[in-house]
Amino acid sequence: MSKKYVYFFGEGKAEGNTGMKNLLGGKGADLAEMTNLGIPVPPGFTITTEACIYYYQHKGKYPRGMKEEIDRNLKRLEKTMGAGFGDRYNPLLVSVRSGARVSMPGMMDTILNLGLNDETIKGLIKAMGHERFAWDAYRRLIQMFAHVVMGMESSEFEEIIEEKKKELGIRLDTEFKTPVLKDLVERFKKRVKKRTKKDFPQDPRRQLFMAIDAVFGSWNTQRAITYRNLNNLSHTWGTAANVQTMVFGNMGWDSGTGVAFTRDPATGEKKFFGEYLLNAQGEDVVAGIRTPKKISQLAREMPRVYRELVRIYKKLERHYRDIQDLEFTIQNKKLFLLQTRTGKRTAQAALKIAVDMVKEKLISRKEAILRVEPSQFDQLLHRRIDPKARIKVIAKGLAASPGAAVGEVVFTADHAQEEAEKGRKVVLVRNETSPEDIHGMAAAQGILTSRGGLTSHAAVVARGMGKCCVAGCEAIDVDYDRKRFVVGNIVVREGDYLSLNGNTGEVILGRVHTIEPTLSKEFQVLMKWADETRRLGVRTNADTPKDAKKAREFGAEGIGLTRTEHMFFGEKRLPIVREMILARDERTREKALKKLLPMQREDFRGIFKAMEGLPVTIRLLDPPLHEFLPKVEELLVEITTLKVKKGSKKKIAQKEKLLNKIEALREMNPMLGHRGCRLGVTTPEIYRMQAQAIFEAACELTKEGYKVIPEVMIPLVGHVNELKLTKEDVHRVADEVMKRKKMRINYSVGTMIELPRACITADEIAKEAEFFSFGTNDLTQTVFGFSRDDIEGKFLPAYLEKNVLDNNPFEVLDQKGVGELIEMAVKKGRRARKGLKIGICGEHGGEPESVKFCHRVGLDYVSCSPYRVPIARLAAAHAALKSKKVGK
Amino acid sequence: MSKKYVYFFGEGKAEGNTGMKNLLGGKGADLAEMTNLGIPVPPGFTITTEACIYYYQHKGKYPRGMKEEIDRNLKRLEKTMGAGFGDRYNPLLVSVRSGARVSMPGMMDTILNLGLNDETIKGLIKAMGHERFAWDAYRRLIQMFAHVVMGMESSEFEEIIEEKKKELGIRLDTEFKTPVLKDLVERFKKRVKKRTKKDFPQDPRRQLFMAIDAVFGSWNTQRAITYRNLNNLSHTWGTAANVQTMVFGNMGWDSGTGVAFTRDPATGEKKFFGEYLLNAQGEDVVAGIRTPKKISQLAREMPRVYRELVRIYKKLERHYRDIQDLEFTIQNKKLFLLQTRTGKRTAQAALKIAVDMVKEKLISRKEAILRVEPSQFDQLLHRRIDPKARIKVIAKGLAASPGAAVGEVVFTADHAQEEAEKGRKVVLVRNETSPEDIHGMAAAQGILTSRGGLTSHAAVVARGMGKCCVAGCEAIDVDYDRKRFVVGNIVVREGDYLSLNGNTGEVILGRVHTIEPTLSKEFQVLMKWADETRRLGVRTNADTPKDAKKAREFGAEGIGLTRTEHMFFGEKRLPIVREMILARDERTREKALKKLLPMQREDFRGIFKAMEGLPVTIRLLDPPLHEFLPKVEELLVEITTLKVKKGSKKKIAQKEKLLNKIEALREMNPMLGHRGCRLGVTTPEIYRMQAQAIFEAACELTKEGYKVIPEVMIPLVGHVNELKLTKEDVHRVADEVMKRKKMRINYSVGTMIELPRACITADEIAKEAEFFSFGTNDLTQTVFGFSRDDIEGKFLPAYLEKNVLDNNPFEVLDQKGVGELIEMAVKKGRRARKGLKIGICGEHGGEPESVKFCHRVGLDYVSCSPYRVPIARLAAAHAALKSKKVGK
Repeated sequence: MSKKYVYFFGEGKAEGNTGMKNLLGGKGADLAEMTNLGIPVPPGFTITTEACIYYYQHKGKYPRGMKEEIDRNLKRLEKTMGAGFGDRYNPLLVSVRSGARVSMPGMMDTILNLGLNDETIKGLIKAMGHERFAWDAYRRLIQMFAHVVMGMESSEFEEIIEEKKKELGIRLDTEFKTPVLKDLVERFKKRVKKRTKKDFPQDPRRQLFMAIDAVFGSWNTQRAITYRNLNNLSHTWGTAANVQTMVFGNMGWDSGTGVAFTRDPATGEKKFFGEYLLNAQGEDVVAGIRTPKKISQLAREMPRVYRELVRIYKKLERHYRDIQDLEFTIQNKKLFLLQTRTGKRTAQAALKIAVDMVKEKLISRKEAILRVEPSQFDQLLHRRIDPKARIKVIAKGLAASPGAAVGEVVFTADHAQEEAEKGRKVVLVRNETSPEDIHGMAAAQGILTSRGGLTSHAAVVARGMGKCCVAGCEAIDVDYDRKRFVVGNIVVREGDYLSLNGNTGEVILGRVHTIEPTLSKEFQVLMKWADETRRLGVRTNADTPKDAKKAREFGAEGIGLTRTEHMFFGEKRLPIVREMILARDERTREKALKKLLPMQREDFRGIFKAMEGLPVTIRLLDPPLHEFLPKVEELLVEITTLKVKKGSKKKIAQKEKLLNKIEALREMNPMLGHRGCRLGVTTPEIYRMQAQAIFEAACELTKEGYKVIPEVMIPLVGHVNELKLTKEDVHRVADEVMKRKKMRINYSVGTMIELPRACITADEIAKEAEFFSFGTNDLTQTVFGFSRDDIEGKFLPAYLEKNVLDNNPFEVLDQKGVGELIEMAVKKGRRARKGLKIGICGEHGGEPESVKFCHRVGLDYVSCSPYRVPIARLAAAHAALKSKKVGK
Repeated sequence: MSKKYVYFFGEGKAEGNTGMKNLLGGKGADLAEMTNLGIPVPPGFTITTEACIYYYQHKGKYPRGMKEEIDRNLKRLEKTMGAGFGDRYNPLLVSVRSGARVSMPGMMDTILNLGLNDETIKGLIKAMGHERFAWDAYRRLIQMFAHVVMGMESSEFEEIIEEKKKELGIRLDTEFKTPVLKDLVERFKKRVKKRTKKDFPQDPRRQLFMAIDAVFGSWNTQRAITYRNLNNLSHTWGTAANVQTMVFGNMGWDSGTGVAFTRDPATGEKKFFGEYLLNAQGEDVVAGIRTPKKISQLAREMPRVYRELVRIYKKLERHYRDIQDLEFTIQNKKLFLLQTRTGKRTAQAALKIAVDMVKEKLISRKEAILRVEPSQFDQLLHRRIDPKARIKVIAKGLAASPGAAVGEVVFTADHAQEEAEKGRKVVLVRNETSPEDIHGMAAAQGILTSRGGLTSHAAVVARGMGKCCVAGCEAIDVDYDRKRFVVGNIVVREGDYLSLNGNTGEVILGRVHTIEPTLSKEFQVLMKWADETRRLGVRTNADTPKDAKKAREFGAEGIGLTRTEHMFFGEKRLPIVREMILARDERTREKALKKLLPMQREDFRGIFKAMEGLPVTIRLLDPPLHEFLPKVEELLVEITTLKVKKGSKKKIAQKEKLLNKIEALREMNPMLGHRGCRLGVTTPEIYRMQAQAIFEAACELTKEGYKVIPEVMIPLVGHVNELKLTKEDVHRVADEVMKRKKMRINYSVGTMIELPRACITADEIAKEAEFFSFGTNDLTQTVFGFSRDDIEGKFLPAYLEKNVLDNNPFEVLDQKGVGELIEMAVKKGRRARKGLKIGICGEHGGEPESVKFCHRVGLDYVSCSPYRVPIARLAAAHAALKSKKVGK
């Protein structure tokens, strides 16, 4: 028996069903399903994706028997409709649509009115009793067919129409009378002949097969290929072609067309939601020339049709067990469903619908969890611009950190802090930010930078703070000297009001009304279900008690990363830190460290308290020391100025000495430089001070009745000996402190795995480490050889544009490269130390795809910035559910 | 039967032999071997390493039966010698020495004269007839024993001796008369008692066992442990203890002592070589108070003894089949051999001895190859300071590149070039060098820098050029403004003569005589054998025709790496390169590239010609473009100066524009920046120009009759798509050129594997690459997260000192980390493309241990700087021979 290539649907029965999406495409499978459900669907048939695949494998030939199958199904359709394809008295008209297994922009959409020609039009006029309508349908067919099937430019026909309008002195197509349309049909046919040397085909069967070829051909247009490449879809799937009887919503005031959702896609509220127009075609609803009516009005205008529609939408939602997005047409009071598909919805709606449907017993809790996309959560957790506000967008940058910010413009971190202390709300505007600006960023409502990308310092820190940030807004030209920035011909001065939309990257002049995020009841319910489902733990990256508290509210189960260096940049501390770095000898350094000790102890007390009862991983100092020193360039300008002006020789000498010191510390590649545990090896006093602060804080709090679980993390280990050496120091200090305090507390010492060599030698390192935490930011830097600080302004845009990379690997974990090393490290690490606790604390810890990866390779927890904690919790639940599905 | 812990040797027969080094230690096994050979060796016995291991495992206890075994062997020794241990009339005296399986500094050396006490000394005096000698022996025993066994400071006894000298007003120990020595013995004994609260042991047996304990104890002194850590020796081996009858070379003019080599260890000449002193102890020969006589004189002074010695040395050399280093003592005309071991030799001697011994049929060619250490070759291939020259060393830096240089001091690259063009020889002195200094380095005889380490720019480039370099000489203080450098109180001015010794790092004032390297006949012979033995190919890294020719002379079989960027730094080119980089638009850029094209074509013509018939791998442009631009700091000083001086506004604006451009291109971490194939993706015009130059040169030369084999190498690929994109460009250009020239040439396109991600995804990359070449410099940087430009001045010294690392991983390949990724890449690459050609072109390609690794993992070739080619050839032969040994 030869293969079946054509599937019929109609007369309340279809040969296909919704489970056959791979064969019939999404559209075809759902048309079949609706037919089987007894829902009125214009009958038709679907030509399978296998036919398309065959077509490609055999240079445009159809499989044997397919043509005959189509003819047979066409006959059946004629019989069903009581009309003839090409029948001059009672012509059957059909549409042809493509439909792959997933909806895909870039492929051919629709050709309507196939079957019309110079003869059948007469039958149509007779059948419909509407001459103008019929001629308009015919000219549309020629236009569409010539463009989509015969490869002409649409504009050629638009030109003819424009000429005609000029001739007649009219403005709108709708003003064309029948004779004009007739004339247009003639002119169109001539233009087709002239351009393609072929006639517009009069044979309906020829029209049909040419249209089917065009559908198949549209599978491999450049746009479709690019779309599939970008979305990792297979090029081998092929598309189906749907041939369906035409119905018309524009056949008078007892006809109409509309779209509807089974629930409110914005709020999730359980109410029928939609719009329609009487005497109109589908495109009229979309085009917005006439204002559509609310669906509820249909109940009054056509009560019977409305009742049927309600019955149908309820049936469909119950059947598909999800919100449906419907298209319908009414032809002479008869209702037809043209499409049903899963409805797109906002995060808020997704939550409400999922939870409601569990209550309605439509879906299980597990399904509910999977119905909400973790990545949508970002919308929910931040303040946002009131959607009703009228705004003046003056520029657009990268949506670097979500939320909204409104405040007066300031240009320096110090100024931001001053103003904030006076109770003012400010927006910090910089070309770029650096660690020295942290206090200003913390004080500001939001941050706007003219340079840097989604992983620039400003972006990363802002996300960590849950603060709105628009980065890399190149249109603005910041002039620090004149305290203003210019964009186009608008000048924004210090003190002017500015608003930022971190969800869109919009920079808005003036004060805009913003609204608070409300974490709905449904949010809490769904998160509870997610927590019950997931295996992965979720911690947070937090450097301050405030962040720690926020993260706890969001459900963090501990801290996975406290960066101690951020504590070193405080206004009062930086001078001491510099004193420490520039110390002539060990004694001077110890003196400076002694001053830092009580401050660090206070830092840790605060964080331990905020995370009472939960583990807190503290990373010892990581950045190279020169990051804390003044910039060479600034000093150089100062010295040159002094020299040219013949300033005090002593002062010059002093500054030059400082400059020499800084230059000696400076590095060509600080990322690969003298940092992390390398500092611990060469300048052990610093780590000792930090360890002392940690254990003194822990002992004190334990005495005060708090439960404290410190985990000391040594960064940037590449060789086990580095860990051995620094770990010994930590243990020594811990013993000393505990002896002095006459108590013992439980703590562990582990390491960050953030270098390829650490992954490769994870077995050796695991013997010395009580836990691993993957620092995937640095690991991505070294695995790719990409500098995170440089990549965005340089070659990344070209890489994404030319499809060298699918994603920015600093946002979405590169599973093939970085991921393989992580897997290697997990295996080697656990082989050497059974049950080794392993987490991840890079930016990827809050990115849903990466969280799934972490689940798959068996990590114990992910750690991310506070505002991403709910995303990670939900993504972890998804991962657990999905991995079960494939039977792992 | 209990284990045997003591092995006797004497009376022409020994229980051990040379094959038992693990059990008896090197010294013990060879004493046994000599005994068995019938060579007169003072009899004695060896306590095994197993006894030592037991001793450590049981907290200082001897294994059962060992003490009795020692007593039995002592009896046997007494019988053999006809003397009694502790016998007051005819005392037996013994020495105790440690001896592990390999010679190891830091362990106890020797205690002599054991068996002497207040009673036996009388017997000794009688037996020897020499009172002064006996008392001197006794006071030496106490001094040595108290120090080595009882833990006292040697200085305590030196003090007493100094006091005594002052008392008597004499200068030398040898002037002490017998009564004085008697008094010293008393004072020594008192000091021992006072300090240790114990008497110097009078019981000889007690002396003996205490000495054995001391030998065992010396295995675990800090120095011995450190030495083993540094040399990767096992701590579990333990040491043997050798107890041997004393013989005395200072018993009159019919006694003596000496050391000898069976061939000349400096030249390898086959002649007996050594020195001796009559009436002297071993230490007198070493101490240099008396001038020893040449061994040939012994033939006249003691013809019988000399004849016996000649007979013995020949026997030993024949037996051990290698040059031997002997120690002997003559006691009353009787000859005793105290030690034989493999003699250390110079590179020149090693070569000659190896080749000679093959001729003498003593060893096979394979053995000959293994007898010469590849790392020694560096000495042979460069000019060197005449060893006879009298020199004034004013400072010492790192021996960064071997050879010798003599010339007038210059401080800038331009000046170096100018002077060289006038025919002057110059030494370039800089704080550090950068790519802009290349022309000056090429023009200079040698380079001296005050900063930077063995892998600094100066060092790497100089080694590549085969040019002498002393780097990181921190003692010199360079003052560019005053054109001089200062070291201590010596001022060296521009134009002063300076000499450098690149083998030692010495900086020498004035002109020193240097001698040419002579590649001996034996060198050529041995290299031929090596070439017949090795499997690995050896290529060279060369950027100029000159280097390529040199490398060919040294046996290179092609070029593994031509760095095209060095060609961009030429004086005439740099302005055009800058024009190209700063181009406003593509057209301007193309214009600049058009100017570069003929220059690049000439470059490639030269190199192809020099390497005619052999493959030439050309790497397309690699460094980030900002490396070619002026330095920000310099520009900043200029601009500031102009501003303060209120200079021309136009000029300031111009310079500021340039500064902005440079700053926009500048990167935080250029090593991880916009370079390599990333340039090829974003600015394809550059690679296209280079490809055009390559293929035009190749086509032209082929037409002229040359055989050209170009291999185009795309650098820094981390993702297969990068290679795909850039490779397509190269093919396109190649096709275009060949079509135009109406011919086809064979070429291949491959990639450098220098990023972890390239190793991990080598299977994907191999599908697109026709060859791999490991860039282990960058791979080491990314695997460790070390910046090669920064590491040496920063934490590397501490890492080596604290044993965090055994080696600088930029010199010796890190097999555990970097090596594992290389192995992974080789496996994955060859799995995806059978027979994939794989080489290495990092600095490691000329380092013997790394070459062995390359052989082991199956690379096709190594590529290194010209002067390292012979090293690599020999190392490759070693690798082939050694891997066969273990049956691989």
